[in-house]
Amino acid sequence: MSAPSTLPLALTPTIHHDTTEENLSSARTEFVAILGLENINDDLEACAARSGSRWSEASPSHKASLIVSPHTTQDVSEILKICSRRRIPVTPYSGGTGLAGSLAATRGGVCVDLSSMSRVWDLHESDMDVTVQPGVGWMDLNAELAENGLFFPPDPSPGAKMGGMIAMGCSGTNAFRHGTMRDWVISLTVVLADGTVVKTRNRPRKSSAGYDLTHLIVGSEGTLGIVTEAVLKLTNVPKNPHIAILPFSDTHLAVETAISIISSGEVFDAIEFIDHRSLEVVNQSKLFPDQWREVPTLFIKFSGADETTKAHIELIKDLAQKNGCLELSLSSDPTQVDAWWSVRKLMGKALVTVMKPNDIFLASDAAVPRSRLADIIVETQKATEDAGFFCSTLGHIGDGNVHVVFFCPPEKRELGEQLIKDVQKRALRMEGTITGEHGIGLSLRDMLLEEIGDSGVDLTRKIKLALDPYCILNCDKVVRIEA
Amino acid sequence: MSAPSTLPLALTPTIHHDTTEENLSSARTEFVAILGLENINDDLEACAARSGSRWSEASPSHKASLIVSPHTTQDVSEILKICSRRRIPVTPYSGGTGLAGSLAATRGGVCVDLSSMSRVWDLHESDMDVTVQPGVGWMDLNAELAENGLFFPPDPSPGAKMGGMIAMGCSGTNAFRHGTMRDWVISLTVVLADGTVVKTRNRPRKSSAGYDLTHLIVGSEGTLGIVTEAVLKLTNVPKNPHIAILPFSDTHLAVETAISIISSGEVFDAIEFIDHRSLEVVNQSKLFPDQWREVPTLFIKFSGADETTKAHIELIKDLAQKNGCLELSLSSDPTQVDAWWSVRKLMGKALVTVMKPNDIFLASDAAVPRSRLADIIVETQKATEDAGFFCSTLGHIGDGNVHVVFFCPPEKRELGEQLIKDVQKRALRMEGTITGEHGIGLSLRDMLLEEIGDSGVDLTRKIKLALDPYCILNCDKVVRIEA
Repeated sequence: MSAPSTLPLALTPTIHHDTTEENLSSARTEFVAILGLENINDDLEACAARSGSRWSEASPSHKASLIVSPHTTQDVSEILKICSRRRIPVTPYSGGTGLAGSLAATRGGVCVDLSSMSRVWDLHESDMDVTVQPGVGWMDLNAELAENGLFFPPDPSPGAKMGGMIAMGCSGTNAFRHGTMRDWVISLTVVLADGTVVKTRNRPRKSSAGYDLTHLIVGSEGTLGIVTEAVLKLTNVPKNPHIAILPFSDTHLAVETAISIISSGEVFDAIEFIDHRSLEVVNQSKLFPDQWREVPTLFIKFSGADETTKAHIELIKDLAQKNGCLELSLSSDPTQVDAWWSVRKLMGKALVTVMKPNDIFLASDAAVPRSRLADIIVETQKATEDAGFFCSTLGHIGDGNVHVVFFCPPEKRELGEQLIKDVQKRALRMEGTITGEHGIGLSLRDMLLEEIGDSGVDLTRKIKLALDPYCILNCDKVVRIEA
Repeated sequence: MSAPSTLPLALTPTIHHDTTEENLSSARTEFVAILGLENINDDLEACAARSGSRWSEASPSHKASLIVSPHTTQDVSEILKICSRRRIPVTPYSGGTGLAGSLAATRGGVCVDLSSMSRVWDLHESDMDVTVQPGVGWMDLNAELAENGLFFPPDPSPGAKMGGMIAMGCSGTNAFRHGTMRDWVISLTVVLADGTVVKTRNRPRKSSAGYDLTHLIVGSEGTLGIVTEAVLKLTNVPKNPHIAILPFSDTHLAVETAISIISSGEVFDAIEFIDHRSLEVVNQSKLFPDQWREVPTLFIKFSGADETTKAHIELIKDLAQKNGCLELSLSSDPTQVDAWWSVRKLMGKALVTVMKPNDIFLASDAAVPRSRLADIIVETQKATEDAGFFCSTLGHIGDGNVHVVFFCPPEKRELGEQLIKDVQKRALRMEGTITGEHGIGLSLRDMLLEEIGDSGVDLTRKIKLALDPYCILNCDKVVRIEA
């Protein structure tokens, strides 16, 4: 009989937590001794606000009983020692912008709110790195770095903070050129479930020193440890930014143009696809002064020395003409570049303007090999509109990642959820993933089985319970711990 | 009492293997039934040849008793099921170019030679990815890809094969622009210790689907599983390649120039540093027709559209003049580019020409934050030469990775090994790593403790034994399993 390398659900020991009032109250006394009364919050509304959002539904029972606000790695270590000893489940919180149900405190217990840990220090300009705490927002960080001409590329939701960005392995529009969060974390200080503090790595750009503990933590959605410090890579603020906007009569033409640009070997900063419905929403929202042609459109950013950007412009002009672009708009005026690019960034806000009060927000975040991107977009648009939904489709096209977003009246929830599952299944048939950047959380656990199979999920569970045997850290996320 | 998230050495259970002749002979019968007699080899010399090399010493007792040559994932799974059931240690082998003692079969048993698994298939040109088996060499792969204008960047030792490249998280000169092996693996098919087959991920460029199992395996040095298939990212063959060679009177001037180039924000392909001693060796070896100025020298590669490379040339010319470059050589003639670049690539061969028959090869592979690169080079050169060794220093300068190589007569072994340890300690003092690309293997396990601390090593050991409870996979590598 051989020792198993994985842990199937059927063999998983039953998890026992203790969230009795008595145990939580004793824990509270210990927290107060460590953190002071001012860093403990047991307001019910505050607890609920940290367990979900309009974009990430949580059942009303899925909320913590207590919020603790640590300020240091040592604080987090003491908190986890207490929770581990007392078998109290823990849900970490930073920016609260997660979409996959990762905020839900499925088993109550304690919310560790990292938003007070918002220091930035040790900026090394010539090494191009900086150290941050998990409560730092990426937009705030970039505002600070800009003074030194430096730039941190990952650009998820504007409110996202480093703790959640690392936990979810997030990305955004800059991932096409610069890669995802995984590519911008040099090292992490992590507190494990039992309070042990691990520094995953030192500060050089490259290392082969042992297992890649850094990347085991990035994307583990707070289930393996709480990140308390991160050393991040930086790059230069893009010089001489340009934007090109290419509307097409047809999705396939837009995607083919993007693939030709990618295959050219030249370096572009971002290539985004916005569909006709999304531009209809932007126009309706009146958030942007000009009206956009409501057709499938590429938004392309590039930068560099004059000679470099001239070469880019030539390439874009050639392809625009060859592939029947309806009208090419180009600008290198920084204000215009920011304004046009903001169309992509204000999509979230624009969508809210067409959302009815009771509508449920439904979104898919599938990613496919680039060659299948046009197929998944067209098939999904058709299926969703055939079912009577107004669907907005946005693509991080260079990464093959497509966001399909629609609002669903409560009475059509089942149909709406089925349509989202259909997008994910379509992605899997195309050798893609159910989630390009939003993570598994609570809502995609069963679909993860279809993506990486029983053995992949069982391996994940084995790792989870090896590092967190009492399953106190963000229990029930990524993989099921009980049937 | 809380459940530990890590596994200290003192609490590690004793590992029992069974390498009795009887057990191995019974296993052999089972292997023959699965693989056929032609894929079993128990020649003693062949076993020794797969357990070490002149560059990676193994004690004479550290060799396997049997070599098995699987052809499929299923073969590897069956082999590991047998070894797991019979508690037979397994050492994987592909190209045999590892430097850190990772080939040594410390506990005898079976060598799984993956070099027969050398298929390349599923080349997706527009997605820019390809699937390979672990016995594929990177130079062979690039020769095949060149027909389609595609390119796989990681460029370690010429004989290296994918299995070892993935296991060690290797890199090479192209890592500056393109990153290391970690950045070029999309997904892996891995056989775990108990024979379970896991596919870590699907084929899109980007995914947030669960733990990053791919990067848990990359760099795990064959201790967590045997890779049987890899989907690799590809890029375009660099167009219009250029080379610039910049000799300086002083190491600091060379490194400062490199840092200015890196900080420019322009995209260069590779920036290598070769010291005066290394160029002395090249001249002595007569492997290269011309004689080189024996001073600290930068070798820089770049490519792209004419406009792009013109901008690069202007930048290099400016910096060369400002920083007192002794003589700038530039070429865009493809034959000349290859010839000049070959100087970096033939350093290994050149060094062998000055090695005496009994000399021991000693090398350090430390990496530091870039700003400390000149310091570590100068301090190390001085210490080594003061101790009477002729030391060659080569740097992947963009990554802060520096190779210090020297040959040591057997009677000076202790001093030589101390000097290597001193380089590693120097790197750690500079917040660097003991290994930028060669890995921990057998020889750096105790130094790893100084780099990531007890808690990091104990976490590594916890993961190792969770996935491989009988410790059959490349036992004793990366972390100690017994005191």
